[in-house]
Amino acid sequence: MACARPATIKYYLREKLLHEGVLTSATQARYDDSHVRRLKLIRALIGTAGLSVSATREVLLGLENPPESGHDLLGIAHHAVARTARDDVDLSSTQALLDHWGWGAETCDRDTQAALARALHGLSEAGFEAPTALLDRYAAAMQDIAAADVESVPTDSPEAAMRHVVLGTLPMEPVLLAMRRLAQQSASFRRFGETVPPERP
Amino acid sequence: MACARPATIKYYLREKLLHEGVLTSATQARYDDSHVRRLKLIRALIGTAGLSVSATREVLLGLENPPESGHDLLGIAHHAVARTARDDVDLSSTQALLDHWGWGAETCDRDTQAALARALHGLSEAGFEAPTALLDRYAAAMQDIAAADVESVPTDSPEAAMRHVVLGTLPMEPVLLAMRRLAQQSASFRRFGETVPPERP
Repeated sequence: MACARPATIKYYLREKLLHEGVLTSATQARYDDSHVRRLKLIRALIGTAGLSVSATREVLLGLENPPESGHDLLGIAHHAVARTARDDVDLSSTQALLDHWGWGAETCDRDTQAALARALHGLSEAGFEAPTALLDRYAAAMQDIAAADVESVPTDSPEAAMRHVVLGTLPMEPVLLAMRRLAQQSASFRRFGETVPPERP
Repeated sequence: MACARPATIKYYLREKLLHEGVLTSATQARYDDSHVRRLKLIRALIGTAGLSVSATREVLLGLENPPESGHDLLGIAHHAVARTARDDVDLSSTQALLDHWGWGAETCDRDTQAALARALHGLSEAGFEAPTALLDRYAAAMQDIAAADVESVPTDSPEAAMRHVVLGTLPMEPVLLAMRRLAQQSASFRRFGETVPPERP
């Protein structure tokens, strides 16, 4: 398997992320396409999405045993990134936002709500109070993205659905963030590109 | 300064992220509100946005000496996250996408284009070819977000504009990603919440 170093493969085998190969001698094992596919998936989850080894194991287990309910697919993918202590986080203002956007706080995972509350708190601590009007525009755009995400989940098999959700959720995030930056550059060029910047008062 | 450990403060002083306090004795220095504000900003950049120390220094220098051109504000913030080798990245398909979306590849930073190309390549390696129709919907939503971002930049002073761009770009990303997950949960509940999942074939 030219796509990973032997030490990395041994580590993944030891951590049970990768299944064993077929022993061909006392010291050699044969790996096949299924190992290559799994390695690429591990790389997308650990390398691109930045998951920990244990979160990756949880997602891979979900892929092998997709849940019965379609809605639980997303829960496994989201739980892997959002499982942090939330005891110290006040969710009341986040829940007010969710209700304001019509997303139904009761249908949303509390860990993800806590992630939003912490991210907004971090911004506010740094001296940036995100205006409600800006957050409302973000919410409208994210609602479009989420609708596209959920509509694109295949329904032919639970395995295909789970695979789509796992890859389309976490490893897609760097795609979305890069697209936002490029769209900002394009919009910034249109607003500021040819104009003189504001004078200092 | 109760909001950071002494060892952290010493590290930031040594790395020139934080300005020195006023010495009150041979071993003691006095810090004021400007240090507290700076510490919170450093925490947002390193802790929330995940920037390196040297990328953080670059952004802080930009805040102290905002560029003359409004468009360059964004360049400093984006350069800090996207400065990676791009020699091995083929930008042709990314540039075709940018042209297709009307964003003008020539006005977009090549490092950010490379970040998008790499993210899409990582997905594809993992076995997920993002359909163009899905990327088009992402692009429309990101264009709305970027328009809101750029419109909300204050024009009263270059300092205020730079501060807004730095905080509204990078430390805002976790907010947007958490919002996407919550919007997905809401949309998934509407699509799958009450239904029986597909049977295995």
